[in-house]
Amino acid sequence: MNPQSSPLLTDLYQLTMLQAYFDEGMEETAVFEFFVRDLPPQRNFLMAAGLEQVLQFLENLRFAPEELDWLAGCGRFNKAFIGFLATLHFTGDVNAMPEGTLFFPHQPILRVTAPIAQAQLVESRLINLLHFQTLIASKAARSVLAAPGKLLVDFGLRRAHGAEAGLLAARAAYLAGYSGSATVLAGVQFGIPLYGTMAHSYIQAHADEAAAFERFAHSHPDNTVLLIDTYDTEAAAEKVVQLAPRLQQQGIRIKAVRLDSGNLSEHARKVRAILDRGGLGEVGIFCSGNLDEHEIAGLLAQGAPIDGFGVGTRLDTSSDAHYLDCAYKLVEYAGQPRRKRSEGKATWPGRKQVYRCFAADGRLDHDVLTLEEDEQQGTPLIRPFMSAGKRLAAPEPLAESRSRAAAELALLPQHMKQLEAASRPYPVEIAPALRQQAEAVDRSAH
Amino acid sequence: MNPQSSPLLTDLYQLTMLQAYFDEGMEETAVFEFFVRDLPPQRNFLMAAGLEQVLQFLENLRFAPEELDWLAGCGRFNKAFIGFLATLHFTGDVNAMPEGTLFFPHQPILRVTAPIAQAQLVESRLINLLHFQTLIASKAARSVLAAPGKLLVDFGLRRAHGAEAGLLAARAAYLAGYSGSATVLAGVQFGIPLYGTMAHSYIQAHADEAAAFERFAHSHPDNTVLLIDTYDTEAAAEKVVQLAPRLQQQGIRIKAVRLDSGNLSEHARKVRAILDRGGLGEVGIFCSGNLDEHEIAGLLAQGAPIDGFGVGTRLDTSSDAHYLDCAYKLVEYAGQPRRKRSEGKATWPGRKQVYRCFAADGRLDHDVLTLEEDEQQGTPLIRPFMSAGKRLAAPEPLAESRSRAAAELALLPQHMKQLEAASRPYPVEIAPALRQQAEAVDRSAH
Repeated sequence: MNPQSSPLLTDLYQLTMLQAYFDEGMEETAVFEFFVRDLPPQRNFLMAAGLEQVLQFLENLRFAPEELDWLAGCGRFNKAFIGFLATLHFTGDVNAMPEGTLFFPHQPILRVTAPIAQAQLVESRLINLLHFQTLIASKAARSVLAAPGKLLVDFGLRRAHGAEAGLLAARAAYLAGYSGSATVLAGVQFGIPLYGTMAHSYIQAHADEAAAFERFAHSHPDNTVLLIDTYDTEAAAEKVVQLAPRLQQQGIRIKAVRLDSGNLSEHARKVRAILDRGGLGEVGIFCSGNLDEHEIAGLLAQGAPIDGFGVGTRLDTSSDAHYLDCAYKLVEYAGQPRRKRSEGKATWPGRKQVYRCFAADGRLDHDVLTLEEDEQQGTPLIRPFMSAGKRLAAPEPLAESRSRAAAELALLPQHMKQLEAASRPYPVEIAPALRQQAEAVDRSAH
Repeated sequence: MNPQSSPLLTDLYQLTMLQAYFDEGMEETAVFEFFVRDLPPQRNFLMAAGLEQVLQFLENLRFAPEELDWLAGCGRFNKAFIGFLATLHFTGDVNAMPEGTLFFPHQPILRVTAPIAQAQLVESRLINLLHFQTLIASKAARSVLAAPGKLLVDFGLRRAHGAEAGLLAARAAYLAGYSGSATVLAGVQFGIPLYGTMAHSYIQAHADEAAAFERFAHSHPDNTVLLIDTYDTEAAAEKVVQLAPRLQQQGIRIKAVRLDSGNLSEHARKVRAILDRGGLGEVGIFCSGNLDEHEIAGLLAQGAPIDGFGVGTRLDTSSDAHYLDCAYKLVEYAGQPRRKRSEGKATWPGRKQVYRCFAADGRLDHDVLTLEEDEQQGTPLIRPFMSAGKRLAAPEPLAESRSRAAAELALLPQHMKQLEAASRPYPVEIAPALRQQAEAVDRSAH
């Protein structure tokens, strides 16, 4: 059973609820919406990501024979229900904000409309997919804003939380504007540009640092980036200067050096001076090592002569906000709007739409959250992607989603591009029609 | 290509280094060790986990034809090297601390001894696997210590970072002493006990809360746990009392109620009183909603009458320490000990062993870190698991690793069982032989 596609990658309660719905003959249409309740403290916006993986998951939703066997044998479900699961596939509709769209609290970025068993069953994996990529895209967008024009590379696979996290973090970061990733499989599966040259172990495995540089250059004449901080950074930069003429005679041009430890600003300045003095003005300086958008902004503010950054752990774990307070909630069943009223967790009922309104200069001004049928001024952000279980269009190329993300970031007002929390949140108006609906649901409550 | 087993789930630099090693004819034995540099601020110990997945990965390490085709077509590697990769499999040795062992900074929990290409290639995925499960087991052990005798269930799949994180977090939490998980696939793949009943959407999909309770009980007479906070917690508890006699006549005993919002301590007390007054003294109270070990300890310290806890996001993301400062470093190549000296990132050279010494009362007293051949008093913690690419024993059953974890936690001195950081770190002595080795390596440096 492949965890990425198995319907058993779910919470047990989805299946126990499905058994009960089945026993009760409850099979009306349910509408669920995915939204985030609050922005983490350091975020001025979020970026929607993960829709493509959700659509793939829904398209392929089937119980395999061995999965049905396991369910039948676990003693919790009856035979008629297992028979029902054997025929289950996704026949519903999906409406969503396209990937790369910026969004704000309480705005649904995905709506599932389907017979309740289907819409309920997929909850756990849909949240799992949307939450993580949205988390990482929203984090990555911050370094994109902090380092315009710089090379930004995802280095996070090793400390990402498992295989899929490494892979999808590379995707989400590229979507948000990163230049590429070190993760090879992300290049294979998503066509993301790959970056990477050598680790300290390569240098250490050689008896001599300069020999390690030279040999690597011979193996990778078109991609010679040398890691120079294994022993003494400036001494290694001098070795690079010594080596360069000999390599040049053989037609090899050193592309860049990489720094991975110590005071990066200071080392970059000293290394830049050594390289420039040695006639290597065109050799770039690439930095890595515990970086995030704050470190990058700090280095650039100090005028550190750095051309690119590798961002690893703090990107792939979204280190300052490693989860979002998100939910996938029932908003309608059998044509009736529904609302949860649990303390501190109340939700807006009914199928919703978000309208975005722009200022005269073209930048984001405010949004309106309302019911789907309540047309408003502005651009509606939620669009149909799947109808009766079928995609309405071919999968969107990642490059297209990435262009949308870039366009969206460009339209942020200046104060929302800052790394610090804006003094006032982005205005999201609740339309009167939606408020009235919520009140009507409360009045009819029991 | 399955990301969990593909050798392309790696950093590009592993492959560029392998090409260079290949070109240079470097194929001597390399020794790499995985260790954690520092404890996160709130940890007094770490728990080793993930070894079983590492051994599986190494056993099955092969490049599939389509993976070789991709590498051949990407333009970075030569044909002879692709031919070398086509025959590559793991022929090395693995020594490690068994899963569930407690460990401390700078102690290797895994050593790989193999021809350098093999040992280097697997770095990214080995770190990815060991880091995450060790992170989660170490986090989970804290709630196990905080809530002795209580039911503890992993609820974290939805906000875990992707599919594998959800699955392996369930495994690591169970290993560390959790009672089970809500994640069905973790039950299928690892035999972990499963827990779960209903979500708010189940209640909301019914016109009437009491009817929802009753119908669910009929579908799950042996597993009736009712979620009572969708609208008004105490009112719902009264409905449970009303319902119980009718269900009892039909042979259905309500097992527990679940609270998921509001002031859990206060609600639990009120609900306990309502249930007891209604003759339902044996119906348990299970709580969830933004819990971690601190919340749990707080609730128990207040004497809240709670029988079990569902712990989700904060467990599966290890919310107070969502990564470990860990590394997989070359410590020997071609028989020569190696050491990285980068600022703030220096490592101990050579193949190492950890000896654990116990106090008179049987509890942990101190450890000694030394070279493998330098025998010391105490119990050596690192054992052989794989030789020449073959496992030395069948996979350890998870129940056995879990028993070890429990035994290890029981031997912690009292001050290390606290949730707060101990005033002094656990003593790990560096043996003179290891210090001398490090000095010798430094003296011979270039």
